[in-house]
Amino acid sequence: MKHALPVTREADFSAWYQSVIAEADMAEESGVRGCMVIRPWGYGIWERFQRLLDDRIKATGHENCYFPVFIPLSYFEQEASHVEGFAKEMAVVTHHRLIADGKGGLVPDPAAKLEEPLVVRPTSETVIGHAFARWVQSWRDLPVLINQWANVVRWEMRTRMFLRTAEFLWQEGHTAHATAEEARDETLKMLEVYRDFAENCVAVPVIAGEKPENERFPGAVGTWSIEAMMQDGKALQAGTSHFLGTNFAKAQNIRFQNAEGQLEYAQTTSWGVSTRMIGALIMVHGDDDGLRVPPRVAPWQVVIVPMLRDAPEDEALIAYCRELQQTLAAQSAFGEPVRALLDLKPVKSTTKRWGWVKKGAPIVIEVGGRDMASGNISVIRRDRLYRADGKLDSAIVARDGFAGEVAGLLADIQQTLFDQAKARLDANITPASDWSQVEAHFAEGAKNPGWLEVQWSRPTGAALDTVVERLKTLKLTLRNAPEGQAAADGACIFTGDAAVERVLVGRAY
Amino acid sequence: MKHALPVTREADFSAWYQSVIAEADMAEESGVRGCMVIRPWGYGIWERFQRLLDDRIKATGHENCYFPVFIPLSYFEQEASHVEGFAKEMAVVTHHRLIADGKGGLVPDPAAKLEEPLVVRPTSETVIGHAFARWVQSWRDLPVLINQWANVVRWEMRTRMFLRTAEFLWQEGHTAHATAEEARDETLKMLEVYRDFAENCVAVPVIAGEKPENERFPGAVGTWSIEAMMQDGKALQAGTSHFLGTNFAKAQNIRFQNAEGQLEYAQTTSWGVSTRMIGALIMVHGDDDGLRVPPRVAPWQVVIVPMLRDAPEDEALIAYCRELQQTLAAQSAFGEPVRALLDLKPVKSTTKRWGWVKKGAPIVIEVGGRDMASGNISVIRRDRLYRADGKLDSAIVARDGFAGEVAGLLADIQQTLFDQAKARLDANITPASDWSQVEAHFAEGAKNPGWLEVQWSRPTGAALDTVVERLKTLKLTLRNAPEGQAAADGACIFTGDAAVERVLVGRAY
Repeated sequence: MKHALPVTREADFSAWYQSVIAEADMAEESGVRGCMVIRPWGYGIWERFQRLLDDRIKATGHENCYFPVFIPLSYFEQEASHVEGFAKEMAVVTHHRLIADGKGGLVPDPAAKLEEPLVVRPTSETVIGHAFARWVQSWRDLPVLINQWANVVRWEMRTRMFLRTAEFLWQEGHTAHATAEEARDETLKMLEVYRDFAENCVAVPVIAGEKPENERFPGAVGTWSIEAMMQDGKALQAGTSHFLGTNFAKAQNIRFQNAEGQLEYAQTTSWGVSTRMIGALIMVHGDDDGLRVPPRVAPWQVVIVPMLRDAPEDEALIAYCRELQQTLAAQSAFGEPVRALLDLKPVKSTTKRWGWVKKGAPIVIEVGGRDMASGNISVIRRDRLYRADGKLDSAIVARDGFAGEVAGLLADIQQTLFDQAKARLDANITPASDWSQVEAHFAEGAKNPGWLEVQWSRPTGAALDTVVERLKTLKLTLRNAPEGQAAADGACIFTGDAAVERVLVGRAY
Repeated sequence: MKHALPVTREADFSAWYQSVIAEADMAEESGVRGCMVIRPWGYGIWERFQRLLDDRIKATGHENCYFPVFIPLSYFEQEASHVEGFAKEMAVVTHHRLIADGKGGLVPDPAAKLEEPLVVRPTSETVIGHAFARWVQSWRDLPVLINQWANVVRWEMRTRMFLRTAEFLWQEGHTAHATAEEARDETLKMLEVYRDFAENCVAVPVIAGEKPENERFPGAVGTWSIEAMMQDGKALQAGTSHFLGTNFAKAQNIRFQNAEGQLEYAQTTSWGVSTRMIGALIMVHGDDDGLRVPPRVAPWQVVIVPMLRDAPEDEALIAYCRELQQTLAAQSAFGEPVRALLDLKPVKSTTKRWGWVKKGAPIVIEVGGRDMASGNISVIRRDRLYRADGKLDSAIVARDGFAGEVAGLLADIQQTLFDQAKARLDANITPASDWSQVEAHFAEGAKNPGWLEVQWSRPTGAALDTVVERLKTLKLTLRNAPEGQAAADGACIFTGDAAVERVLVGRAY
């Protein structure tokens, strides 16, 4: 069977991924090392993420702010393990002016060298901590619950669009609390917001759990993540939530007078989701015909393509389609108006059809003269593109009844995409109880091995390093220890000691 | 009469401006030179701007994208007048890593010097032009209509919060068209979008018109602006729209094959509104008690303050207020749900009242035990804070009837703020027909002189430089030549030649 993309998942998953991004016009190389241009279809998905996630962040009591893109170098010198984790990969501003080089070009002006270099934020704990120190004096000022939507920069050597880029977009929440218990609750509350967003908006099933010590955010006491499984069986960390304890509060002097009049350090948290989630969407839902966007996050949920012929009849056909577009836009799906586009670009209609299939618009409607004559439209569901006989599944239905069905159809597509991904996730997490099973499972050439769930004694320090090194020989990493898991009842697969919990291991992006 | 701010507009307008920002918790110095922290109340206003302006930008057919924050130095070398205009004030990234300096500090790693320095975008014409060159091949690819919401950096020597900061937030629209006529139409269409947004959303009346040659954007063929008048009579350029002709297209090789098969350069435009508009809002609507936010852009339109006493009766009072909050939130004003907050922070209620007055929430409702007993609430309108006798104007009304009135009340406040500002603008634009009038009008010590409207022959080049220098002696600048003005009928105030149009002159931010 022929497909719309030049390469299949089976043939070369990595090439397929790049091909989806290119063919769906989501993003492209920018000419600036490691930075991408996010094109309207990719950015439109990000805007949907922003709207849905922002609503949830606000509903849990957080307010948005904005902090500077530049952070003075000295701020990074204050939290030792934080700088350790980030120092190696930051963009540094050293000059504030350019001058002519006398040869028709420009150079940084030596007379405009900054006394203290500025770092382009890789994350904002340090600069936000300084603000918290100003804002927090008394227990009455707590909690502080803020979030920002921003661009951040981490100088990555090997970049891959959406998954790892020098600049990326994200939201970063930062909070300060009076007690460790409250801060831990916040950390887990936002983890749950992320799980809900990933599963119910992006239709990406995830495992929420705590990362092991070696995978913690630099400076954190505990890091939790949501982990999604891609179609090649690899894990993608799609959101993280950190309990920072008093580590940053001590480095930045965030102190408050408690109700008894004593000075205490605040307990802080931070949590983020980025444009990386778009990478997860692609690798969870895409197929050999391109992207499939879950309706809740699709910039356009329904696209109407009139089969124009550059003839006088076109006018009536456009009017027929416009009526449909307007009727659909007046419907509500998932509590919002249906996003329906009438595509009138001067492009051949089959090119348009395949363009929207590759972009993954949930519903594509084609309308030709014959459809119009009989009051019909032809409806393609992106989640079920082909019939059993391999032909394109285009259903002829009455135009006037369709508006009443569209919300249900979109809900069904959303659910179908989630169910497919959930079945795959569930089928590909396998328990393993000794190391030889791990080796056999991840043997050379194993296609889509998924993840193993193993029991372990949660070693720390050097003992943990040994585990990490052993896993590395199979290109494996510890993902997380799922929340709400059954009690451990076996031996640690690494040390043979009594296990204290179950942890997932797998290959990862 | 005593007011909530420590300084009045009359006493010191500039100190008053800083005081509004501080007392309303809108923004603060960040510790990073020239960069501010935008706090939730300031950022909440920006989010309202974003939502309302973004809707208008999309309704006129534009799509959002995202381009890199870094621009290679060489891109700036391509458009000569553009680099001339921006080269002096840009943040330059020269290194991509920090290393320990051996003394417990960090320094840029000399081994990680970039081959080509990167400029933090001061505006994105150059990098977006490169993308347009890739995207545009044929007339069928035109027009390209895009916009981005982003942070930009211009290294300013003297900064002032919201008005002039090293980093600021904005939207920048960029379009490419097949003909000059279409690009000019686009430029003026977006100017009108800005006028509509400023007047109907921010309640800031503006004069839309073309900037004179010397005030054009670097590289533009024509620049239009909306100019707002602050309460000290100064002008603030609150949005600009540029017709770039083929200047950037030639520098960046944006060419297309026209319907006849010939290669042509595209005609481009760009247009932007920034966080500067928040400065306009403050200086147009603020009074000696703080900010007054027009309801359409207020993060909270109604704030309910229960007069709590740390007593058991508090519970019933909170329930009484919560019912009101929920009823109000179910109402619609300006086509959106009413944004009503129940303020339960552990702070004294008079402190809260004055806090919300200083923040400029359009309606503040106080509810005490006595109000509750009689089914009432006390309503303060921020646009009419005091009665004729100088006492706070707090109206006691029945709680249950209020929900039916709230939309009308908010609309009335919005209109009142606009009308006050419009009357001030109209009263302070004065025609002048010779230079001595200009000198007299702007004589030393003239309080709130507003703007003068003069007729001129629109000199260019050196003749224009002479005019600009002459105005400079009075600290004046040419603002714009209003759209839709009456035909010129006199002599040029500068050259004595026959005038061709009317132009506004004034002092400016």
